[in-house]
Amino acid sequence: MARDTVGVIGGGQLARMMIPPAVELGITIKVLEESAGMSAELAATGVGDYRDLETVIAFAETVDVVTFDHEHVPPAILEELVARGIPVHPGPHALQFAQDKLLMRAKLSELGLPVPDWAAVESADELAVFLDGHGGRAVVKTARGGYDGKGVRVVSEPHAADDWFLALAEDGRGGALLVEELVSFRRELAQLVARRPSGDVATWPVVETVQRDGVCAEVIAPAPQSAGVIADLAADIAIAVASGLDVAGVLAVELFETTDGRLLVNELAMRPHNSGHWSIDGSTTSQFEQHLRAVLDLPLGATGVRDPWSVMVNILGGPAEGTLQDRFPAVLGAHPTVKVHGYGKSPRPGRKVGHVTAGGDDLDEVTYQARSAAALFSD
Amino acid sequence: MARDTVGVIGGGQLARMMIPPAVELGITIKVLEESAGMSAELAATGVGDYRDLETVIAFAETVDVVTFDHEHVPPAILEELVARGIPVHPGPHALQFAQDKLLMRAKLSELGLPVPDWAAVESADELAVFLDGHGGRAVVKTARGGYDGKGVRVVSEPHAADDWFLALAEDGRGGALLVEELVSFRRELAQLVARRPSGDVATWPVVETVQRDGVCAEVIAPAPQSAGVIADLAADIAIAVASGLDVAGVLAVELFETTDGRLLVNELAMRPHNSGHWSIDGSTTSQFEQHLRAVLDLPLGATGVRDPWSVMVNILGGPAEGTLQDRFPAVLGAHPTVKVHGYGKSPRPGRKVGHVTAGGDDLDEVTYQARSAAALFSD
Repeated sequence: MARDTVGVIGGGQLARMMIPPAVELGITIKVLEESAGMSAELAATGVGDYRDLETVIAFAETVDVVTFDHEHVPPAILEELVARGIPVHPGPHALQFAQDKLLMRAKLSELGLPVPDWAAVESADELAVFLDGHGGRAVVKTARGGYDGKGVRVVSEPHAADDWFLALAEDGRGGALLVEELVSFRRELAQLVARRPSGDVATWPVVETVQRDGVCAEVIAPAPQSAGVIADLAADIAIAVASGLDVAGVLAVELFETTDGRLLVNELAMRPHNSGHWSIDGSTTSQFEQHLRAVLDLPLGATGVRDPWSVMVNILGGPAEGTLQDRFPAVLGAHPTVKVHGYGKSPRPGRKVGHVTAGGDDLDEVTYQARSAAALFSD
Repeated sequence: MARDTVGVIGGGQLARMMIPPAVELGITIKVLEESAGMSAELAATGVGDYRDLETVIAFAETVDVVTFDHEHVPPAILEELVARGIPVHPGPHALQFAQDKLLMRAKLSELGLPVPDWAAVESADELAVFLDGHGGRAVVKTARGGYDGKGVRVVSEPHAADDWFLALAEDGRGGALLVEELVSFRRELAQLVARRPSGDVATWPVVETVQRDGVCAEVIAPAPQSAGVIADLAADIAIAVASGLDVAGVLAVELFETTDGRLLVNELAMRPHNSGHWSIDGSTTSQFEQHLRAVLDLPLGATGVRDPWSVMVNILGGPAEGTLQDRFPAVLGAHPTVKVHGYGKSPRPGRKVGHVTAGGDDLDEVTYQARSAAALFSD
C-alpha cells in the first residue's frame, strides 16, 4: 500500500498552497492548524498547539508522513515522532539548522560553503571586536525566532544589541548572537531545490528577490543575467546544502550576489518559500507539488519554466476596507493573463495576504502586469 | 461585500477539480455530495440527495451562487432556488436544454445552428419513416438520462428501439425518442466556451476528442489541422449556443466534423467537461477556474495555450489491484514532465479514475508521453 497521506503542521498559506497539488495528484493532505479558520482551513483535520507533544502525536498518527508550514516545531517533539517510527521530512537533524542560525553558519562553514564572515558573540565586548575587524559595521541576528526581517539589526556600535544580550541572559539558557559582516551586494538571489529522502534532487532556475523593509516584495524568475556561471553556482550551492544537511523536501537558499561577483549564503528555509511562489504558474512542477512528491519519496517532477519570464509580486496588506475579493472585478478585468492567489486571510497592514504572478516573453511587460495587478489590491 | 462562496451540487471529479482554482484564487467552495467520501469530499459541507428540495435549499442557503457537477438536478428544484433569489448558474431555463435532447435539438434548429437531421419519434412506425428517409440507418437516443454512450443506439430496423418506447409508455409521462441521421464524420471535435451572466464569453481552441466505446479516451488540443476556418466556425457555433441558450458558466459543445467538411452539433454539456481537462495544465486559465469566475460573474481569464500541443489521456479503470498511488513511483519516474491527476476514486473496470496531460512542441512526442503514462496506471 502506497503512502499517500501527507500531514502538514501549521495552517498558514504555505500549507494552503499544498492543497491544490494534493487534490490534483489525488493524494490526501491533512493540516494541523494553530487555530480555527486559518489559511489552510479547508484541509485542517486538527486544531492545536504544535508545541504540545500530545497534540502533535495525535495528529501525526493519522498521516503517513509529517511535514511543515514553518520551522518552529520544537526539536524534542520531532525526535519523539521519529522515535515512534513516523516519517518526518525534513527531519529534526536537518531542521535544527533552519531553527538556529548559529548552528547553520557553523555547519555551512564546516561544509566549505560560501558564507559572510561571521562570529558567535556573547557580549558587547565580543561584538566590539567583530566590528573593529569589519569596518565598524555589522549585522546582528538572533540565532532563533527571526523571520521577515525580525531579529535582524544593522549595528555600528558595540552596545546596539544590549537588549538582545540581556534577553538571552534572562532566558537562563544563555547562548550567543550571530554577527555577520555587512555584505556589499549587487542583489539578492534565491535558489530553490527539492530533495528526496533517497537523495535525488531537482533545482529550479535561480531567481532574483526584491526585499522591502526586510520582507520579500517581488521575485523575478529566472534572475536576469544569471544564465551560465551564476545559475550553475547557485544550483551547486543549494544541492550541497540540501545534501550536506540531509534535507528532504523543498529547501530555499537565500543568496547575496556580492559586488565582487561571489555568491554567499544568507538564509535557509526548509519548506516551500515565498521566492518559489512563481513556480505555481511558471514551472512544469510547482514547489508545492514537488514538496509533496519529495516528502512522499516519489520521483521529482520536471522544473523547466513555462514562460521565459515570470514575475511574482506579493500582495502586502491588501485593501484598507473590505476583502481581496472586492477587488477581483477590477484586477481580473484589467489583467486577464495574470494569475491571482489569495490566502484567505483578512487584510491587515503589512500582512502577506496573497500574491500575483505574470508570465511572458518580455520582462518589462511581465513586470508591469504583475505590479499593476498587485497595486489594484491596495489603496 | 463581494460574492465569494460557490456551492457545487454533486461530489464527482468535476466538483473536485474546481477545488484547486478556488483555493488558489482565495474564494470559498462548498460541495453537496451524494454520499460521504466522494471525489470532492475535501470541500463537502453537505451530504444528501440532489432530488430532495429541502436538502438542496438548506445547502444553497450557505452559498452565494449555486452551480453543478452534473446536469441532473430536477428543474422544479432549480426553479425554487431562483424563486428564492439564490443565483443559479447555469439557470434552469438553460439547463433544460442539457437535460432533454429533444428540447436541445429543437432549440438549436430554431437558432439556425447546424445539427444532424433529426426527428422526435413516438413509435416504431415513426422510426420506420425516418429510417426510410435516411438510408435505412439512424441513431436513436433517449431524450433524458443518457451519458458516456448510455441511452444511445445505432438502429437499422424500426423495432430496434421498442424497449425504449415501452419504457416511455410505462413511465406514464409519455414522450418521444430522438432519432438522428447517422452522420458520416472525419472526427469528433469539442469546443469549450465560458460565458458570464452579463454576457461576456471566452473560448479555448477547438480540440479533437477520441472516443472508445462511447467514452472519451483522449483529447488533443488544439485539434490538428483546425487552425483557421474550422477553429473560427467551432468558436462561432459555441458562442451562439451559449448566448442563444443563455448559459452562464462553462459549456462544452461536442461537434462532428463531417466528411464533407461541415461542423454539426452533437451533444452539449453545461459544466466543465472531459474535453477541457487539458486546460488545467495547458491553458493560462483552466476550465475549472473559468467556471468559477463565470458563475461569480467575474471577468474571464485569458484562454491561450501554454504549449503548442497538449494531449490528455483518461485513466479508465486503473490497476486491477491496489490504488493509483501504487503506480506513482513508476509513472512519475518515467514521465517527469507529465501531469498526473487522480480523482480519489477506487479503481473499477471502465471507471474514469484520473487523467494525465502532456504538453510540448512535438505532437507525436506529447502523445507518446501521455499514452505511456496513462498505460502505466492500468494492467
